[in-house]
Amino acid sequence: MTSPPHSVQYPMLSEFDLIKRYFAQHSVTDPRIALGIGDDCALVNPTPGMQLAISTDMLVSGRHFFPDADAFMLGHKCLAVNLSDLAAMGAAPMAFTLALSLPEANPDWLEKFSQGLLALADAHQCSLIGGDTTKGPLNICITVFGELPPGSALRRDAAQVGDDIWVSGALGDARLALAGYWKEIHLEPAAHQQAAQRMHQPTPRIALGLALRGVANAALDISDGLIGDLGHILERSKVGASLQLDSLPAGLVLSQQALELRRKFTLAGGDDYELCFTAPVAHRAKVIAAGSASATPVTRVGCIEQAPGLRLLDDFGQPVQLQLSSFDHFSTP
Amino acid sequence: MTSPPHSVQYPMLSEFDLIKRYFAQHSVTDPRIALGIGDDCALVNPTPGMQLAISTDMLVSGRHFFPDADAFMLGHKCLAVNLSDLAAMGAAPMAFTLALSLPEANPDWLEKFSQGLLALADAHQCSLIGGDTTKGPLNICITVFGELPPGSALRRDAAQVGDDIWVSGALGDARLALAGYWKEIHLEPAAHQQAAQRMHQPTPRIALGLALRGVANAALDISDGLIGDLGHILERSKVGASLQLDSLPAGLVLSQQALELRRKFTLAGGDDYELCFTAPVAHRAKVIAAGSASATPVTRVGCIEQAPGLRLLDDFGQPVQLQLSSFDHFSTP
Repeated sequence: MTSPPHSVQYPMLSEFDLIKRYFAQHSVTDPRIALGIGDDCALVNPTPGMQLAISTDMLVSGRHFFPDADAFMLGHKCLAVNLSDLAAMGAAPMAFTLALSLPEANPDWLEKFSQGLLALADAHQCSLIGGDTTKGPLNICITVFGELPPGSALRRDAAQVGDDIWVSGALGDARLALAGYWKEIHLEPAAHQQAAQRMHQPTPRIALGLALRGVANAALDISDGLIGDLGHILERSKVGASLQLDSLPAGLVLSQQALELRRKFTLAGGDDYELCFTAPVAHRAKVIAAGSASATPVTRVGCIEQAPGLRLLDDFGQPVQLQLSSFDHFSTP
Repeated sequence: MTSPPHSVQYPMLSEFDLIKRYFAQHSVTDPRIALGIGDDCALVNPTPGMQLAISTDMLVSGRHFFPDADAFMLGHKCLAVNLSDLAAMGAAPMAFTLALSLPEANPDWLEKFSQGLLALADAHQCSLIGGDTTKGPLNICITVFGELPPGSALRRDAAQVGDDIWVSGALGDARLALAGYWKEIHLEPAAHQQAAQRMHQPTPRIALGLALRGVANAALDISDGLIGDLGHILERSKVGASLQLDSLPAGLVLSQQALELRRKFTLAGGDDYELCFTAPVAHRAKVIAAGSASATPVTRVGCIEQAPGLRLLDDFGQPVQLQLSSFDHFSTP
């Protein structure tokens, strides 16, 4: 259609074109999404009687990922860390928004980033319903929405004295990969690559989180290291705990390293995105069944106790003293 | 409470302390918010039968605000631009999440920023339910949630041929203030300060948006300039429009400037955060009543037409040719 001669001309390449070109999601159609990208707001009809779970995470270049990070894997990771928060509550993914600050609209980067992002979104039937793009230092902020029945959320404040403590999957390989990049240790290239896979493309434990509804008491996802994150459960549940230090499941690559490094990186690694959860002793068989049903390894690593604080025990039940701290964005340079 | 001798020590000042200290909201309690800040996800019980409206906006230092912007006003503005999106759909604010990338945890800045943010949140009974903080270049990403009855949203694609076009409040003072900062024009300090108030502390037109449910057909908020934003309504509604150029309501300071500047900044300013909406001619009295009820000026500025494109007319109905473009983040250096 041609414009009349006195019409105003709009710019040809725009933020809207960028969204349409790279972030249109063709394989997910959800009747709950009444209106997606393109208006002032998205419109969502929540499932009647269900509760919404909402989480937001911001990833900054040079802080959460290397400035030259592979764009496909970065797209995956940005959504994965958000889905991991839904998993930790036992919520089923529904939708997400994406806000993106980019130094430039690089078509190659955008193509790969959006492919990595949308592949994971599609796998979890999670609709991209809105967003914002702007020029600026690379920064990716995703807000994710899930649903769950009221009263079924796996909260941090629900651990009970006597509960077993469990972790999903394996810990420490992401931190090991980082140690390799930082030259803290030497890793063979193949081993480094294998560990790096866990760092760059974490698996959100959605299926396990859903299977743990009604089975686990408390849960969270391990993003800043097990001891720091377990500390949040202890603080909010007003309990203590002991961990069987050498029963912690080390990642495939980390498990080939010396004892000291295994202990350090399983306890205080970071970027694991595994679930740490507590469940009554009477639910051990149900926890194992939940692991099987979701094809996710689960390992019992300790127990919740009345005495405050976190005790680390060796295989003989003897206390182990370690100098460790969890990752914190404002106390870490 | 003292820790047992073999306990792990957690860092004393953390991201969690930061959130607790500055972003605890004491004056809003909403029974729909089942769980707020502090877990993997917030939990929300939507009002049965209501639809959710969701929007996200990212504000970047040096792009959307000056690096030395007053922190109180910046806190206000970040939430205001998001609430403005809810207003444009006719949704009532409920809650929001905040993701914040900060170069440092400066207590003075955080105190003022959070005060500005929470003052506006309190005024709209909007609960801060979750967030993320990280170290990095200053970047503020808010995702906002509102509610509205299904079918009542003021969408961009709902303009009808014959509709009047209206705008709320007044346009162009924010752009005028920017012209002052950039030394494009000379403004007296008092006038500059008055215009800058509109730039730094826009008023989200929530009450008007609610009053326009069932009255207006299409609506959006004017953030990138009237012609560009009205263009979105025209494109999505597959219609054209004419605007009475000199009936556009100029801001108090801009109205004292020359005709050319008034036309330019009312048409293609930016940062106005006023509503542009269309309504049937038969609803003129209702629109005026909605303006009165919400104490918001409303001005009729044009009409929706079948012929595609946007025509600018002077007081004599004669076409006016202007070279203007709307602000776009990736076509603007």
